[in-house]
Amino acid sequence: MAFDSIQTPAGKVDQVLGGSANFFSIAASIYAPVDIVGVVGEDFPKDHLLWLSQRKIDVSGVQVAPGKTFHWVGSYGQDLSDAKTLSTALNVFEHFDPRLSHKHSCAPYVFLANIDPELQQKVLDQVQEPRLVACDSMNFWIAGKLQELRKTLARVDIISLNEGEAYLLSEEKNILKAAQAIQKMGPSVVIVKRGAYGALLMTSQGFFIAPAYPTAHVVDPTGAGDSFAGAFMGYLAEAGAHRNLAQKDPVRWEQLLRRAVLAGCVMASFTVEDFSFRRLTQLKISDLVERQETLMRMIRVD
Amino acid sequence: MAFDSIQTPAGKVDQVLGGSANFFSIAASIYAPVDIVGVVGEDFPKDHLLWLSQRKIDVSGVQVAPGKTFHWVGSYGQDLSDAKTLSTALNVFEHFDPRLSHKHSCAPYVFLANIDPELQQKVLDQVQEPRLVACDSMNFWIAGKLQELRKTLARVDIISLNEGEAYLLSEEKNILKAAQAIQKMGPSVVIVKRGAYGALLMTSQGFFIAPAYPTAHVVDPTGAGDSFAGAFMGYLAEAGAHRNLAQKDPVRWEQLLRRAVLAGCVMASFTVEDFSFRRLTQLKISDLVERQETLMRMIRVD
Repeated sequence: MAFDSIQTPAGKVDQVLGGSANFFSIAASIYAPVDIVGVVGEDFPKDHLLWLSQRKIDVSGVQVAPGKTFHWVGSYGQDLSDAKTLSTALNVFEHFDPRLSHKHSCAPYVFLANIDPELQQKVLDQVQEPRLVACDSMNFWIAGKLQELRKTLARVDIISLNEGEAYLLSEEKNILKAAQAIQKMGPSVVIVKRGAYGALLMTSQGFFIAPAYPTAHVVDPTGAGDSFAGAFMGYLAEAGAHRNLAQKDPVRWEQLLRRAVLAGCVMASFTVEDFSFRRLTQLKISDLVERQETLMRMIRVD
Repeated sequence: MAFDSIQTPAGKVDQVLGGSANFFSIAASIYAPVDIVGVVGEDFPKDHLLWLSQRKIDVSGVQVAPGKTFHWVGSYGQDLSDAKTLSTALNVFEHFDPRLSHKHSCAPYVFLANIDPELQQKVLDQVQEPRLVACDSMNFWIAGKLQELRKTLARVDIISLNEGEAYLLSEEKNILKAAQAIQKMGPSVVIVKRGAYGALLMTSQGFFIAPAYPTAHVVDPTGAGDSFAGAFMGYLAEAGAHRNLAQKDPVRWEQLLRRAVLAGCVMASFTVEDFSFRRLTQLKISDLVERQETLMRMIRVD
């Protein structure tokens, strides 16, 4: 949970709501119930937590700690690809110690957002036999806590990371070799997010390569990756996916993963159309269905 | 027809055979007969022209002019995306004046490679009712001869250009808007080549977005775009495609274009696996078929 101050070619916003947990859970909640485990400062708007609960997002795992909420300041250049971080104030995140309630420890689907891999493992230590575990990471942890990150990777089914991060983590410069190398680190499913070029899924069946949904109104890419992950996991949860499907019914497993990736691409295409998660809050199911169908037509070969 | 001297992270070659005409025709000739209209200098190896004719590529339209063959010197950085031109010696190209024989003027499929748009029009003035005309261009002509290029575009069915060029030509920064703007300039079919991310096809039916075939051995991207175009046009020629299909049977037209784009992506994936067109000369039909089927599986959603 975060405040973001962002400048893009389309405009500028100060202290808007953001953070992986927000983008992920708002996107995922369209498909399935979500519980957030996280931390905010005393400056965090209670109205927003209330609003999340009204969307059936359980915020009982959100600690309110003394101090300020995490604050990211960043900007994007004309091509809207990589964000430039201008400042990061960890604030209450500095002493975050995730403690899961009994309900949370029984969560069937677990997404470990991009935090310190030691904390990711602390969460995993507390969950009991989840059906599916996915994680995200970023350059900061790959460069600074590689050994801990490798331990996390050995314990997850799915990793999603962006292309530059995939190269950094794998020490490869080729997408095929990078995905294969990361797969060897543990996760049987590797998702490489490629921004405006979509996403690539690698499983034991090989590659699925999905394009981004091309939208004419790109305002701010912040949260695209997290909302991608939210729709992806939400889709799998709603379908009841279980990691043992990979062995029991590999065709169905692959089919679910591919459709979940497309759901992620579609969600991300809405996220980027406005600052913060403004566009997501106005989303109707029919909007999602329409774009998913259009995207399917854009890749179809008869 | 050119000599290329190229440095990439994988190695270095000096004065190897290259040029749009070579890459295009070698790729296209796998699908359909090809006639080259072009110019070489006295230093160009006659053996190579003979070798092309043995592949059923008619080189009677290749003039041998006094002087040296066009020579491009370039290099690629670690990410193998944009080429950096170190020097360009136009040589015999400086006074190239394409004159078509009767046979050439009756060519049913015409591809105007990346030359001065005034020369592209000169060629078009000489051809009689082709079934399909495609063209390529580049930054140099977009920046330097925009009015002439616009005249060419008004007379072609298909344009293929890379993403940066599409933004430059359209003065847009969004792929959707760029493709739409270029379509309004004339060509009903716009192909945007995206390097390692594949290609995007825009027709009256909307977008088709094809990924690049991911290969683990990328040696040199030179010629990828031209061999893409060669396979694309060769595929359409072999299928007997005609521009009037767009009206008469739009479903079939779209299907042919999409498969032709995939054929282009597959061909380009072989081209980049070695310097010059070395890999293409060893290509078996079964190699192409295998990759095309694999690529189809990589985009398929059941």
